[in-house]
Amino acid sequence: MAFEPTDYQPYDFANRRHIGPSPAEMDEMFAVLGVSGLDELIDQTVPKGIRQAEPLDFGAALSEREMLWRLEEVAAKNKVLTSLIGQGYHGTITPPAIQRNIFENPAWYTAYTPYQPEISQGRLEALLNYQTMVSDLTGLPVANASLLDEATACAEAMTMALRSSKSKAKAFFVDEGCHPQNIAVMKTRAAPLGIEVIFGAPSELDAEAVFGAIFQYPGTHGGLRDVSAEMTALHEAKAVGIVAADIMALCLLKEPGAMGADIAVGSTQRFGVPLGFGGPHAAYMACRDEMKRAMPGRIVGVSVDAHGNRAYRLALQTREQHIRREKATSNVCTAQALLAVMAGFYAVFHGPKGLRAIAERIHLKTVRLAEGLEAAGYVVGPEGFFDTITVEVGLLQRGILQAAVKEGINLRKVGRTKVGITLDETTRPATIEAVWRAFGLVRRDEGGAQGCRLPDALLRQSDYLGHEIFQMNRAETEMMRYMRRLADRDLALDRAMIPLGSCTMKLNAAAEMMPVSWREFAALHPYAPKDQAKGYAEMIRDLSDKLCAITGYDAISMQPNSGAQGEYAGLLTIASWQRARGEGARDVCLIPVNAHGTNPASAQMVGWKVVPVKCDAEGSIDLADFRAKAEQHSDRLAACMITYPSTHGVFEETVRDVCAITHEHGGQVYIDGANMNAMVGLSRPGDLGGDVSHLNLHKTFCIPHGGGGPGMGPIGVKAHLAEHLPSDPLGGEAGPVSAAAFGSPSLLPISWGYVLMMGGDGLTQATRAAILNANYIAARLSGAYDVLYKGGKGRVAHECILDVRPFEKSAGVTVEDIAKRLVDCGFHAPTMSWPVAGTLMVEPTESETKAELDRFCDAMLAIREEIRAIEDGTMDRESNPLKRAPHTMEDLVRDWDRPYGREQGCFPPGAFRVDKYWPPVNRVDNAYGDRNLVCTCPPMSDYADAAE
Amino acid sequence: MAFEPTDYQPYDFANRRHIGPSPAEMDEMFAVLGVSGLDELIDQTVPKGIRQAEPLDFGAALSEREMLWRLEEVAAKNKVLTSLIGQGYHGTITPPAIQRNIFENPAWYTAYTPYQPEISQGRLEALLNYQTMVSDLTGLPVANASLLDEATACAEAMTMALRSSKSKAKAFFVDEGCHPQNIAVMKTRAAPLGIEVIFGAPSELDAEAVFGAIFQYPGTHGGLRDVSAEMTALHEAKAVGIVAADIMALCLLKEPGAMGADIAVGSTQRFGVPLGFGGPHAAYMACRDEMKRAMPGRIVGVSVDAHGNRAYRLALQTREQHIRREKATSNVCTAQALLAVMAGFYAVFHGPKGLRAIAERIHLKTVRLAEGLEAAGYVVGPEGFFDTITVEVGLLQRGILQAAVKEGINLRKVGRTKVGITLDETTRPATIEAVWRAFGLVRRDEGGAQGCRLPDALLRQSDYLGHEIFQMNRAETEMMRYMRRLADRDLALDRAMIPLGSCTMKLNAAAEMMPVSWREFAALHPYAPKDQAKGYAEMIRDLSDKLCAITGYDAISMQPNSGAQGEYAGLLTIASWQRARGEGARDVCLIPVNAHGTNPASAQMVGWKVVPVKCDAEGSIDLADFRAKAEQHSDRLAACMITYPSTHGVFEETVRDVCAITHEHGGQVYIDGANMNAMVGLSRPGDLGGDVSHLNLHKTFCIPHGGGGPGMGPIGVKAHLAEHLPSDPLGGEAGPVSAAAFGSPSLLPISWGYVLMMGGDGLTQATRAAILNANYIAARLSGAYDVLYKGGKGRVAHECILDVRPFEKSAGVTVEDIAKRLVDCGFHAPTMSWPVAGTLMVEPTESETKAELDRFCDAMLAIREEIRAIEDGTMDRESNPLKRAPHTMEDLVRDWDRPYGREQGCFPPGAFRVDKYWPPVNRVDNAYGDRNLVCTCPPMSDYADAAE
Repeated sequence: MAFEPTDYQPYDFANRRHIGPSPAEMDEMFAVLGVSGLDELIDQTVPKGIRQAEPLDFGAALSEREMLWRLEEVAAKNKVLTSLIGQGYHGTITPPAIQRNIFENPAWYTAYTPYQPEISQGRLEALLNYQTMVSDLTGLPVANASLLDEATACAEAMTMALRSSKSKAKAFFVDEGCHPQNIAVMKTRAAPLGIEVIFGAPSELDAEAVFGAIFQYPGTHGGLRDVSAEMTALHEAKAVGIVAADIMALCLLKEPGAMGADIAVGSTQRFGVPLGFGGPHAAYMACRDEMKRAMPGRIVGVSVDAHGNRAYRLALQTREQHIRREKATSNVCTAQALLAVMAGFYAVFHGPKGLRAIAERIHLKTVRLAEGLEAAGYVVGPEGFFDTITVEVGLLQRGILQAAVKEGINLRKVGRTKVGITLDETTRPATIEAVWRAFGLVRRDEGGAQGCRLPDALLRQSDYLGHEIFQMNRAETEMMRYMRRLADRDLALDRAMIPLGSCTMKLNAAAEMMPVSWREFAALHPYAPKDQAKGYAEMIRDLSDKLCAITGYDAISMQPNSGAQGEYAGLLTIASWQRARGEGARDVCLIPVNAHGTNPASAQMVGWKVVPVKCDAEGSIDLADFRAKAEQHSDRLAACMITYPSTHGVFEETVRDVCAITHEHGGQVYIDGANMNAMVGLSRPGDLGGDVSHLNLHKTFCIPHGGGGPGMGPIGVKAHLAEHLPSDPLGGEAGPVSAAAFGSPSLLPISWGYVLMMGGDGLTQATRAAILNANYIAARLSGAYDVLYKGGKGRVAHECILDVRPFEKSAGVTVEDIAKRLVDCGFHAPTMSWPVAGTLMVEPTESETKAELDRFCDAMLAIREEIRAIEDGTMDRESNPLKRAPHTMEDLVRDWDRPYGREQGCFPPGAFRVDKYWPPVNRVDNAYGDRNLVCTCPPMSDYADAAE
Repeated sequence: MAFEPTDYQPYDFANRRHIGPSPAEMDEMFAVLGVSGLDELIDQTVPKGIRQAEPLDFGAALSEREMLWRLEEVAAKNKVLTSLIGQGYHGTITPPAIQRNIFENPAWYTAYTPYQPEISQGRLEALLNYQTMVSDLTGLPVANASLLDEATACAEAMTMALRSSKSKAKAFFVDEGCHPQNIAVMKTRAAPLGIEVIFGAPSELDAEAVFGAIFQYPGTHGGLRDVSAEMTALHEAKAVGIVAADIMALCLLKEPGAMGADIAVGSTQRFGVPLGFGGPHAAYMACRDEMKRAMPGRIVGVSVDAHGNRAYRLALQTREQHIRREKATSNVCTAQALLAVMAGFYAVFHGPKGLRAIAERIHLKTVRLAEGLEAAGYVVGPEGFFDTITVEVGLLQRGILQAAVKEGINLRKVGRTKVGITLDETTRPATIEAVWRAFGLVRRDEGGAQGCRLPDALLRQSDYLGHEIFQMNRAETEMMRYMRRLADRDLALDRAMIPLGSCTMKLNAAAEMMPVSWREFAALHPYAPKDQAKGYAEMIRDLSDKLCAITGYDAISMQPNSGAQGEYAGLLTIASWQRARGEGARDVCLIPVNAHGTNPASAQMVGWKVVPVKCDAEGSIDLADFRAKAEQHSDRLAACMITYPSTHGVFEETVRDVCAITHEHGGQVYIDGANMNAMVGLSRPGDLGGDVSHLNLHKTFCIPHGGGGPGMGPIGVKAHLAEHLPSDPLGGEAGPVSAAAFGSPSLLPISWGYVLMMGGDGLTQATRAAILNANYIAARLSGAYDVLYKGGKGRVAHECILDVRPFEKSAGVTVEDIAKRLVDCGFHAPTMSWPVAGTLMVEPTESETKAELDRFCDAMLAIREEIRAIEDGTMDRESNPLKRAPHTMEDLVRDWDRPYGREQGCFPPGAFRVDKYWPPVNRVDNAYGDRNLVCTCPPMSDYADAAE
């Protein structure tokens, strides 16, 4: 045998690691589909008229190792200094056990939003712990499961106040002590809603003139103030009082609830979540009980399952934007679940005594720092402070800031004559000494402190975190097992396909995840000097260029930290452009009725009127209706929002017409990028006529869903809109939408790594494989289930809608029954009842192998047979495996009272035998949970009862 | 409320993270034990006479974050260059999915050796994959589950040849082309066994004169030679032929089996396991079928469970050292399971086509490198090569080596005029160009190559890795799920206590594990210039100092990479000292009958005669017998080996007498450090009279067990022995015991981190807590079970032996039945039948909380009640929950044919309800597996059958 080198590419990430079906599997799939290959299938699926002219060309794809080398190179260009800038962002210590077992564990980070509670009990419990922590520390009874960042949380609180207040006023008071980024984002949010923002010192508040007011606590320059009197005044005026509070400070200081606040917001970043140059971190929100139904975001609640056992679930889901559309309380959809889980575990790890001790240490270090400066004659303010002081330095400002940088420390420039310093739990004596040196002092930090500088009146009087979960033994062995037990209760991508239509649950490769943990990406303060973030800049530039090439746009803003934020930012950009060209009065937005619910919710947030457009029988936009509505509103038309391919999973051939009509009538075209996974490399929204799109990096570009966030929703725009993109939160014309200039930048290595390893060809092939996988499922299930919408040539795009509505009549089987039965088969259900009520939307993504697709199809076909048995009358209409799904170990160990066998109940086709996933609870009672809303941890004694 | 800072230490690792019982729990435990506190308990347990004089003082303990800062500082002193030194160690790419999901995943690294097969099916399957890979690539049918490193594997192969050969010769031939470290370790091993080592070129082999011969393939300088003729000659002389082969080269080259080799050994490091400055990595060994019973190490085999389903287990366990003592085939005990699993997964990830392609790329790069050098007139050898070339450079040697270092590259110094270069899968064109520059050439690496330099006759003719497991779809999604499924089948420390007596399964903290993955520790070549390893040197120095302070010794050798290796190295050190003082004839070693089985096996390896010493009724050394034996063998007494506290879990008060007697008769005292977890901070072997001890860093000092390795067994010695410690493998008088100077140095950050975070007080408190936990279990179980051995005041040390022998007669219940029943309760069984047959030895360690101890005690007490029910006749003697344990989901879903209920069978006290661990198989049939030894993967079709 001669030596004949093979052309097999062992390090080919795209085809060997990322794309599921192997070449041999693809051949088998082509046979099922009756096509000669991928080219033919794509020709049948994606209309020629919308295909892009040139293939993507990003040069050679990198192997995993080459990508990591490249990322190391870029990471090295970030300089990690110790940042004492504060301003809402703080050094923190992530307990290594949390880093390893949560943040870097696919069982946690690949999970989806817990909409299916039976397979999400682990993260629901972790989020309930988080809510309990927030509720306890703020002194307010109801907390949600996190928001995107503190600044957007402030803006959400403002609009929540508007919804809840019975005051007639249209103005909102903002404490001038708020962090600048919070002010900036609230201003952005207020403008289109016609809210007048009044700034001032708390003492200047005229409660009668406002529907609400917000106070920062501690203030951005460290000041501490009891706003109880302001709260009373607000309440007397039927206005709403909000406190934006530092979560760590609340471990020592009087809590917002005790001051009478209605709403508290803030960031939980400093509870163990790395700075990450601005994100992702979980913002919190808590409120009084009476306001809970006005609260945006997700709330985890407690309910019971079919056996009456304790079970967690997302409460009050009817408030959610996908149901309420333009009547939604907010467009907030993504939370920061993974980061909230981390922050919650940080509290569980430290417990109330630990948190208090950490806060005390931070304060005492700050006192020592201040004492040293005062001893040298500096004027240090404010009088009472927690962790932040502001020093009057006059002309020395520039020199001190520079000297600090030479010491490896970033301080905060305050005005022209002051320097701000904020300490945190990572601050060491050496750091304090280095700060002193920057101020020209040679002094040793001997520990100890003369005394506390917290105002006596503001010392916290109440206990917190009394629940057993925060009192548990904090040995790492115990903690590790608790984290493992919770993880094991959930079904995430590391165990099974999650074929959620519109959610693109694709591979989150280990190689992509690794750089996120690197110090050079994780430890940068968002407001660090730009020359310390050159690596970030280079990465963002290159990723932006590639995303422009992929989408056909000219500029990208990375600022929106969720898809819905992207929509909102995109519409703001359009509004700004309309205003700039003198068309600011345009306020009508055409949106097809099958749009994502966030679309109308976002349009409403920029103050627009949503005009719905009909769809035809195929689920495509009714062009005639679209034209009619555009003409009708021609003078007022601001924009249309469409999704491509449509939310029905079809490449509509009329998309160019829709865009042209919109432009004719002076509108701009927003193309929702939720379905970009069907387009990358094949078609570009910018070429189709789109002016703006957001990209869900957590769908198409591999950022994991984290059990319900983080997300990342950058927007691409055509050149004419570029100058209207969101501006830096610390300055700029347009106004920011997020607290950090680049949203959640520490996630970007994931998407960049993905694009680098795929290359243009690989990305295109992934799209083709995604379409192949969806069509393969449609083909295998045909005959058993009707696929609702198909393109002209009988193909679907990257997802397909299975019509299961007829079974309700024929067998009493609902879409929910099928979803729960799939749990028995070891699957997360497809998207339920969206975009069409009573149907299932299946999106397998390119990352699933044929073997896994077959396992799913086998399960679905067996379910169809079970339905048929009910239809035939051979299976009982009430007590059958569908109605009583999912089945648990609890069922198996009890007396079996069912007309079908244990084997059939528990091991339907698809289920693994020895590796069976068992849901920890039976079907959860949703109504019970909403009737009896409990959104903090119930006492442990209840657990014992439930376990009986 | 005034501000009163608490003295709670939030970052206190020792008391808050590492030690299980909280202060409140400890108080409850004291009440159960009837003591006022830890001081009293320790006074009752540890005799005053053996207590150390001074407490350990290592300064302030570091927090997790401070420890990581310190480690970062030290890591930065290691300079990571690209090492092209080769010599058995190679750059490699660890697939990120393997790094994250195996290497950094506690489900894998905290597992114990799979002696209990029902809870170890995951790693047993992974190791079977590894064995199949080794068997296929070497062309030999039987492979073991790994050895410590290639050099010790060579030595093991030599002694295996001695055992197996029917030749009368006492000499062993060693190819002069072997790697120097392999030669050095074989020489060390040969000397005490009276084996004469003959060196030479293969052509100089006189087969009649030897019982075996070993050849390196490729040779250390790159040479390739077909040794088929030598094998034939050896076989004709009834001698054994061994090939030490590079696993990557075997992907292209004729395999040892095809040459007629009897045994093949080598390293699997370059299959994805980081260099780690020398280890840990898995060495492999494969042999002909006829020799399998002479093979050292563990072998995974295939058997069936009680339902006849496929089940894996460790085969041929009767060969193991703990049973065979001085008749054991080897003292090898620890394998490198975690690393073998990684190497096996590397092969699964790449598959045969991928491995071949990687090997081809390495070869073609080497050809290009050679062509460039040849074009410039350099003389490059050998004629045929795979990845290693040796270049004649004359007087330029020094300059070229230095120029290479300036380019960031280490080359190999060969003799005085040559330079060796070995390429690997990480080599980039830029690296090749840099090497050329070091040789004075400016040249671009354009890719491609003129042709292959592998000798035609040595091209591999056979296929490999044909089994389905290596043919599976290698999409990461599929791989990740496969790794998760295997992990989920096993019960490791991340889910439950593993109360294995003598194994010290304590917390392996995440903070300790993190630095192991850092490039500065992971990417260093063991033979890199010393000035590139200053960080390692500093760490080793400080850790050695602390270990000396802990043990009372004066010098430490980190070289032994397992506990048994430590014993062997320690005895060699003693032997060398005896020889140096003219007492080389001393060859008697006194060993109590209750010693660890490795003790006699190790003594036999240094050529000593083992003289057993009796124990008294309490399990302590019979002092009279000890004295008598010492006197009887006074002239020949080399050493005694004792364990302290004894293997029976008792602090013997006579230990000083034993040491004194030994010294009186000219012997040295070896104190086995297996039970150091009961001593640290309380008592020092060096003070008691010990001359040498080994420390199991993987027991007492937190290196995880990895499912059966890696281990680490450094030895401490008194000053007079220091110069006799093992020498550097690349030079030195005494001779090395391992291939790398510091054994498996990349594990040392774990132990160092542990010691830094505990401080002297924390370490001492850990010991005290370990003793508390053991005594608490003994107390709670008293009445139900007899504790076999106690100290004078009725206390046990850090472990206790439960006597379950009476139940065999009273109820027909064996120790195995109880062990398997504990699986139903969610526990790994305690150590079975050691040191006393038919008993259970329980060691909880300090890391378990009272809650977990109680869960265990509840389970044990319930088991006792089940036994009582059999004794009473209320439970059937054959079909009862003990005899039919463990229970599986398979049992639960089938018709229940037992006289006890499902609930009782599957959810006994201790078992979690929703978080229940289910063993994937029922009780495994050991005899069947040994009768039908299969130690490579059976065809998948068999799996399907088994699943029916």
